[in-house]
Amino acid sequence: MDKFLLNVLTEWRRLDLPFENAAVVAAVSGGADSVSLLLALDELKKRKKLNLRIIAAHFNHRLREGDSDSDEQFVKHLAGERGFELAVGSANISRDGNLEQNARNARYEFLHNTAASLGARTVLAAHTINDQAETFLLNLIRGSGPQGLGGMRSARPLAAGKGWENIGTSGTEGQTDTEEEKSVSPIMLVRPLLNWAKRRDTENFCRELGVVYRYDTMNENLAFTRVRIRKILLPLLEEFNPRIIETLANTSRLLRMQPQSDGAAAGGDEPLIGITDELSLSELRQLPAPELYRTLRGWLDHHRGGLRGLELKHIEAVERLIYSKKSGRNAELPNGGTVVKSGGKLSYRNLKVEK
Amino acid sequence: MDKFLLNVLTEWRRLDLPFENAAVVAAVSGGADSVSLLLALDELKKRKKLNLRIIAAHFNHRLREGDSDSDEQFVKHLAGERGFELAVGSANISRDGNLEQNARNARYEFLHNTAASLGARTVLAAHTINDQAETFLLNLIRGSGPQGLGGMRSARPLAAGKGWENIGTSGTEGQTDTEEEKSVSPIMLVRPLLNWAKRRDTENFCRELGVVYRYDTMNENLAFTRVRIRKILLPLLEEFNPRIIETLANTSRLLRMQPQSDGAAAGGDEPLIGITDELSLSELRQLPAPELYRTLRGWLDHHRGGLRGLELKHIEAVERLIYSKKSGRNAELPNGGTVVKSGGKLSYRNLKVEK
Repeated sequence: MDKFLLNVLTEWRRLDLPFENAAVVAAVSGGADSVSLLLALDELKKRKKLNLRIIAAHFNHRLREGDSDSDEQFVKHLAGERGFELAVGSANISRDGNLEQNARNARYEFLHNTAASLGARTVLAAHTINDQAETFLLNLIRGSGPQGLGGMRSARPLAAGKGWENIGTSGTEGQTDTEEEKSVSPIMLVRPLLNWAKRRDTENFCRELGVVYRYDTMNENLAFTRVRIRKILLPLLEEFNPRIIETLANTSRLLRMQPQSDGAAAGGDEPLIGITDELSLSELRQLPAPELYRTLRGWLDHHRGGLRGLELKHIEAVERLIYSKKSGRNAELPNGGTVVKSGGKLSYRNLKVEK
Repeated sequence: MDKFLLNVLTEWRRLDLPFENAAVVAAVSGGADSVSLLLALDELKKRKKLNLRIIAAHFNHRLREGDSDSDEQFVKHLAGERGFELAVGSANISRDGNLEQNARNARYEFLHNTAASLGARTVLAAHTINDQAETFLLNLIRGSGPQGLGGMRSARPLAAGKGWENIGTSGTEGQTDTEEEKSVSPIMLVRPLLNWAKRRDTENFCRELGVVYRYDTMNENLAFTRVRIRKILLPLLEEFNPRIIETLANTSRLLRMQPQSDGAAAGGDEPLIGITDELSLSELRQLPAPELYRTLRGWLDHHRGGLRGLELKHIEAVERLIYSKKSGRNAELPNGGTVVKSGGKLSYRNLKVEK
């Protein structure tokens, strides 16, 4: 099998995404990244590796006259040609305040609503390791501090309503601690390319499949800081270190793993959940992401007597327990510890017998 | 008073450096940074702000034929002209292994021995905020991870013998817990320009005093990564953010403040000192810097019930207690807590009366 397909499949497994009996929504702009992901999922479906309902979702921001509509036409054509299910949305984005932020909010709202209406619990975004490196540099130049430098996560809850970066409560509405099986899990935003794919890989994969992706003309506009970072700063940094993209993405990953000092996170408020023997899933689901990570770290630190050996993937595994519908499941931690989900609670057990 | 002098004086106070009855050794290469610091100390002495014995110390690495000797001549001339005490050392640096590292070790050994022989407990190095920003980028490009990105500290113990980055034990030889007053504190390497001075400031100050500093021709050699960072990368980054030097130095500072995850520090070893009510000064003095910081953070976290409001300056204040000869002193922490030094131990007290 093609290396690109193999990598998608490996990451799919690592992210604990469904292989059957589920619907996933794939955001598609028409660019190489999102088209390559959609094509890869379709290939994996054809090869019987995935048995999923895959819905492409395109949002027309109507921000670039002509171009925006051409992108929509391209995605419609691609979907028609290949027989993909397609959802299309559009909006007149408000130019009050931050235009980019408004566009992003409108797009995520559309993706969330599309997923909700189709019963899909996963929205896929095709951000690559290049996007992660560019985001790191953007935040570094802005002086965002350690938390901003942590960059994007490969999976996070996609909340309904305002504050798309945080976990909202509407997804967990009507849920009780004891009737966890009946609860509706929040919709997750998942980025299956973020940890490994370079932009060159997505372009090559499209080319291999003979698909001519769209090229956003804004990608050439040096008025945008992100474009100058991509076109001018990164090539210079590559002269210092040919693997600078991977290096920056990895630094971002390491920073995401760092426990945050209290002052840096959540404005110095008291932790929302104290250290107890068991953590309530419904309470955890209400926490914004940094607070959730901090709570889990503190709780594991307490029970394990330290954070030794604990990596981001372990915290992410516990996070999946929190949002996964399947009950009674475990997340294994290094050195013999296990987080067990049962009865709407997380508990910690050390299954290693002390000698 | 000149802004430069005022800034040196303010930082001198912040770093808890002595104002009288002490000798300090100032490392002087002959470049603008080290010459400006030496001149500033001399000015402050003339203005009766400092009453110290100041010894300039120049180390001839003999690495640049002719130039190295010219630098030595320049510093000798400057010292003679201005009546500075001067210590000069030199060595034939081994070219086995990392030349730069060998040169650095030889220089620090000379500075340490000079201070030790004169009874000085402070060695001053004239690194600026520019050096900090360059170090940050150097480590970022190398992929050093969060700890390397933390950069230089404004004060750290200068150990004798091998491992100049760590705290050695020879400086604390013969010390007992209960006879702390008699103990010899380790020699500290202090950087009074690191937090505020830009290279431009040091050059301007030399010019104001009519002193023509030496210019190291290696600073123009683009074969060195640090020179390319200074000459090519930083000017490009300045186009993105005119205050990039300050921004990077501040990011470095914030990262230095972050609690390190156990995996990142000290190779996952057990903390060398467990959480107890009191910490032994002699044990703390044996710890390498990252371990010391981690120990202090864990201890304060335990006693305060969190790290809220705690900043790097507070940890540094506790660190000064550890290395300062004066006994019975306190370091005030935010929210009413105090670290008290007494009888060779640190203890934590909350002096705020609970209502």
